[in-house]
Amino acid sequence: MPDPTAAIRYSLDHQDEALEDLKAFLRIASISTLPEHEKDIILAASWVAEKLKAMGFEQVAVIPTARHPVVYGEWLKAGKAAPTLLFYGHYDVQPVDPIDEWETEPFVPTVRGENLYARGASDMKGQVIAHLKAIEAFQKTSGLPVNIKCMIEGEEEIGSPSLEAFINANKERLKSDLCLNGDSGIIAPDRPSLVVALRGLTYHEIRLTGQRTDQHSGSFGGVIDNPAMVMAKLLAGMKDDQGRILLPGFYDDVRELSQHDREMLPELSDDWWKETAGAKVLFGEPGYSTTERAKARPTLDVNGILSGFTGEGSKTVLPARAMAKVSMRLVPDQTPARVRAQLVQYLESHVPETVTWQLIDHSHANPAVIDTQSAAVQAGVRAFEKVWGTTPVFDRVGGTVPVVDLLQKQLGVNTLMLGFGLPNDNIHGPNEKQHLPTYFKGIETAIHFFNEFAS
Amino acid sequence: MPDPTAAIRYSLDHQDEALEDLKAFLRIASISTLPEHEKDIILAASWVAEKLKAMGFEQVAVIPTARHPVVYGEWLKAGKAAPTLLFYGHYDVQPVDPIDEWETEPFVPTVRGENLYARGASDMKGQVIAHLKAIEAFQKTSGLPVNIKCMIEGEEEIGSPSLEAFINANKERLKSDLCLNGDSGIIAPDRPSLVVALRGLTYHEIRLTGQRTDQHSGSFGGVIDNPAMVMAKLLAGMKDDQGRILLPGFYDDVRELSQHDREMLPELSDDWWKETAGAKVLFGEPGYSTTERAKARPTLDVNGILSGFTGEGSKTVLPARAMAKVSMRLVPDQTPARVRAQLVQYLESHVPETVTWQLIDHSHANPAVIDTQSAAVQAGVRAFEKVWGTTPVFDRVGGTVPVVDLLQKQLGVNTLMLGFGLPNDNIHGPNEKQHLPTYFKGIETAIHFFNEFAS
Repeated sequence: MPDPTAAIRYSLDHQDEALEDLKAFLRIASISTLPEHEKDIILAASWVAEKLKAMGFEQVAVIPTARHPVVYGEWLKAGKAAPTLLFYGHYDVQPVDPIDEWETEPFVPTVRGENLYARGASDMKGQVIAHLKAIEAFQKTSGLPVNIKCMIEGEEEIGSPSLEAFINANKERLKSDLCLNGDSGIIAPDRPSLVVALRGLTYHEIRLTGQRTDQHSGSFGGVIDNPAMVMAKLLAGMKDDQGRILLPGFYDDVRELSQHDREMLPELSDDWWKETAGAKVLFGEPGYSTTERAKARPTLDVNGILSGFTGEGSKTVLPARAMAKVSMRLVPDQTPARVRAQLVQYLESHVPETVTWQLIDHSHANPAVIDTQSAAVQAGVRAFEKVWGTTPVFDRVGGTVPVVDLLQKQLGVNTLMLGFGLPNDNIHGPNEKQHLPTYFKGIETAIHFFNEFAS
Repeated sequence: MPDPTAAIRYSLDHQDEALEDLKAFLRIASISTLPEHEKDIILAASWVAEKLKAMGFEQVAVIPTARHPVVYGEWLKAGKAAPTLLFYGHYDVQPVDPIDEWETEPFVPTVRGENLYARGASDMKGQVIAHLKAIEAFQKTSGLPVNIKCMIEGEEEIGSPSLEAFINANKERLKSDLCLNGDSGIIAPDRPSLVVALRGLTYHEIRLTGQRTDQHSGSFGGVIDNPAMVMAKLLAGMKDDQGRILLPGFYDDVRELSQHDREMLPELSDDWWKETAGAKVLFGEPGYSTTERAKARPTLDVNGILSGFTGEGSKTVLPARAMAKVSMRLVPDQTPARVRAQLVQYLESHVPETVTWQLIDHSHANPAVIDTQSAAVQAGVRAFEKVWGTTPVFDRVGGTVPVVDLLQKQLGVNTLMLGFGLPNDNIHGPNEKQHLPTYFKGIETAIHFFNEFAS
């Protein structure tokens, strides 16, 4: 069995470098959804490629897709007997609005207390660098006991639209024994956990058009319908006042939670949820605990609405158009296609004749489940135990990582989620952070995982 | 009796000047609601003051208020026996968004066919210049038969918040026999009309706050409520599916239309309304004709909504906040204060405990009614007959001109609405225009009105 002692020693001695490398990566504003950040996307992809080359990876390439490139590189010197891991990460990040709520600039990484603040610090540049640092620690000491292929994409935050085609076109190159997916986290700095289920997603934009152009609300109020009001009524009708989703047939495919599913969920109090969400009051579907609702039940959320005049002061306008972004998180056995059809059916029967509607699809992913009995999960459990001194709990997360389902379906490759974000990292919101003690322990955990998985 | 022949001749000979002066005024982007246009507001006020001075007005002053100044000037050389008119206008304009729907720049006045396109062309820089040109035509020929005081404000498009205090502080200066208010229009180029009733207004902004910050919809969907969804439900509950307003007690103060009221409304077909609104389908309160709904029934409209991510593509955010602008048009005997209280009562009983709410008041005005038997209205009727060759109909308008009610209450001065906009001028929307043949006939009509009123 290989010995991780020297690698652990190396990682402890090089924490400064692990922090500086992460900061450099975080300075690149690689927001994938906004066209004006196209050049930052290319910059981030190149940065990752250069990093892999410097670490001795081979076949390093920035591979174009329909939208943002995938960075690939491989290090296969552990030999044919050693297992091959496909490390998955993404170099893109979420937008930064509302920008005025950030305490420091989102792309000027800043340490305050035990945390490093920047967009992408936790989701997931921090996790990418943590794994690379674990690899480097072995390379610089006793040698890496596993083969590694890296696939770092730039479209995760927009739902990985090009990844399916990329995986299909690169099946031979991506062949591996396990996907190690760093896009993950643990429950608390003192409560390690391993994710064993992810919700799916289907994300849409509804656009309504009423009259030809914005009109004066004094001249035409009472004469024609108001697309902003129609949108309000459509959205309001999608959920009842207790949080149950009213799309036709929405719960038909939802697999009920078994007693075992419920027992496997971590124990998280409502106070913990309130604190983590920054909310005074919790809300959701009756009959399920908050943790069940967050991790194992489907949801519907309005992600954005825009209509009419939204500047300062008043404008007596009757808007011609209204837009809303609506997404649903899915659980087994729902599929994005079926839920989209339910949404279309709802719109067909509820949109009044006073407006025309259009549905735009933004992203979709199936829900995913990971086998807790697998060698990979068991190696992960042991790795956490060695660093944290406690057994990690199995967790389901409410978020969606499209690649998990894609790799299983297309390559037959299972995934282990191994990342070190925290629930209060404000990912996707202002003041995103990475908790640095957890980050450094994460590097150690990844080192132990390589070792345990190779043994 | 004075003779308008020479003045009419002068106005016909100087139409080019009347167009060029209007264009110069329209080049100033005097948007009152946007702080970044403060300097344009000052520019527009100065432009008007200089124009009055050049025309021989005396006591010309740009008088500061709490927000935007009022331009005052007087020409009292018609003598004590002649009546004194207080001409009311405003030099401010509406914002220009959605900017990409303008065919030409909003502040680059452009003639296409019979129309002059620019923000403010119809509402109401065109009407201000039309009246000034009528005054000038008399000044340059037989002499103006009435005394004129001008009060041109800069806050009409934000609900005239400083005007009440201004009128109170200038009662002596503003003393007059009639207010001539140019902020008006006629039904069609071949259908002159005189406005004899205006709806009131109360305009509010509702702000909702849920959790502390925007959150990831995967992590917290199902855990906490969604302010965007709460806003949708609140707005949806303000009106039923047929367009009746559901605020508690909203219709209690609404005076039912008498048979006479109904007969006095102009005959406008539903096809005319569809064409004018640019809509395929009309919509509103059952039991009333479209014209009644537009001109003589109260309304509630959503003027704007904003929440969450509204950029291109997708962001899986659960918004922390939502904002909506909501305004109601009022009819006798409703008051803004009572309707505001109804809105507050609605919010108090409908906002769930999952969010906190805040109500911001933007503007308010009482509904106003004008006596059709007055000498002023009768002089207006004769003026239209002389230019158009047809008797104008009496019209009620859905819009709101706060000053009408203020002058009646504070100075006991009645108003005549005399303006030459058209219902399809796109005021408040993109591609606002003034129909030039109507504009030139408007100048003639104002000349005849001065003459008839002085006789």
